[in-house]
Amino acid sequence: MDRAIGVIDSGVGGLTVAYELMRQLPNERLIYLGDTLRCPYGPRPEIEIRTFTWEMVHFLMTKNIKMLVIACNTATAFTLQELQKQLPIPVIGVIQPGARAAIKVTESDHVGVIGTQGTIGSDAYAKALKTIKPDIKVDSLACPLFVPMVEKGILDGVQCQSIVQDSLRPLQKITGMDTLILGCTHYPIIKDVISRVMGPSVQLISSSEETAREASIILDMNGILNKTGHRGYHEFYTTGNLDTFKKITNRIFAESMDTIQSVTMERAVI
Amino acid sequence: MDRAIGVIDSGVGGLTVAYELMRQLPNERLIYLGDTLRCPYGPRPEIEIRTFTWEMVHFLMTKNIKMLVIACNTATAFTLQELQKQLPIPVIGVIQPGARAAIKVTESDHVGVIGTQGTIGSDAYAKALKTIKPDIKVDSLACPLFVPMVEKGILDGVQCQSIVQDSLRPLQKITGMDTLILGCTHYPIIKDVISRVMGPSVQLISSSEETAREASIILDMNGILNKTGHRGYHEFYTTGNLDTFKKITNRIFAESMDTIQSVTMERAVI
Repeated sequence: MDRAIGVIDSGVGGLTVAYELMRQLPNERLIYLGDTLRCPYGPRPEIEIRTFTWEMVHFLMTKNIKMLVIACNTATAFTLQELQKQLPIPVIGVIQPGARAAIKVTESDHVGVIGTQGTIGSDAYAKALKTIKPDIKVDSLACPLFVPMVEKGILDGVQCQSIVQDSLRPLQKITGMDTLILGCTHYPIIKDVISRVMGPSVQLISSSEETAREASIILDMNGILNKTGHRGYHEFYTTGNLDTFKKITNRIFAESMDTIQSVTMERAVI
Repeated sequence: MDRAIGVIDSGVGGLTVAYELMRQLPNERLIYLGDTLRCPYGPRPEIEIRTFTWEMVHFLMTKNIKMLVIACNTATAFTLQELQKQLPIPVIGVIQPGARAAIKVTESDHVGVIGTQGTIGSDAYAKALKTIKPDIKVDSLACPLFVPMVEKGILDGVQCQSIVQDSLRPLQKITGMDTLILGCTHYPIIKDVISRVMGPSVQLISSSEETAREASIILDMNGILNKTGHRGYHEFYTTGNLDTFKKITNRIFAESMDTIQSVTMERAVI
């Protein structure tokens, strides 16, 4: 079973999911596609998000992937159900894993969620949480500045701290919330800054770590876990600037990745 | 979808899984069967463990359960694969969830496992861990005194502390191990004592919490999550002494359970 796991994201955020997949499933081979050119997806209308996501999916399906991970909260919110219905392979998103992990962790049954405008506007986390646990309290906050900041490579320092501090102020005032879901795969990249701002009483849930964990389960339950014991060979594709993408990739993985290439999607930027 | 989740264990240990199922999946209905009369399973030969487990499964299948949780590590080690093959419903055990959670948590890639003689002798955790992550280091230790102690209701105090301290001594000498899997569902009941003995540098993984989390995923992926928003109604059965079972049940749940009844398995104690 040498087929790869396909991973898609609007940009570099999904690399945090790829990192966790590689750490938790070192035998598996990944093919990653980041649509950096058209990032961010968060503020775009639903039809664009769905169109762009399907274009990425078509590209990866030509690579004969055995499972698809939608490593983008916005794309998960708008396309998970249709992709699960229409693709002949298992498809997992990043919202349900984060929701389930938060339910496991919270003791106060009061959870915060931060994400893009699209993700928060879709109310997908609150729905996922309340479907499983109806009386859970959820406070959601869109942080539209985080993704562009991370995509520019601003990952710490005074400017980063200041943007995070200002953005999270509404959540800091809320009492009783003991768990915060990082509802965007870009956010684990600035997890330390978010953690400093929120303080030690709030436990952060990385949807990236949790998604990799769930991918492991789904591979196992579907009998498609790579059991050869060989380290997987990975391919990375970006629709955008190759140098910026490489810079962030090397920072996240702390090593050079096997292959990083440019790719063009069918449709131009809208 | 008002069908229940079936939960089986050799005794009261699986109640920690039931507790987590109720906490993480409050809409779901549980039917629990603890084979207290024939507990512990750990030191028994494989053929007995398989026979007893199948007897419990037959009992629960007459209750039209929608999923089976084998909330016993020993039974999981010896029957998971055949139950997954032969039952027409999803079946999950407690070993893989603990293994996956440990892989997520460990930073040193050096994990300890404690369990019954049967579980440790089967090498099931080491196999589960190494199948996913071949270079992980695993130290295993059988703690045969823990289950009889817990089943007697000795859950803290000097005697409990002393037994735990003596049993875990071989693991305390090992350096670099940052994660310890409680590879028996009885052990979370004495988690605080184990945690005191192992110290703060070792993170404990409760296979109970993790199994409930994975049950949530499997229900979701199979479209059999109860979405009615009503609290489930639970039934508990024991093959052994009803008073002891009730005492431990009330301690674990900190409330009286809906129904606790005696039941007799087809075969007598061997």
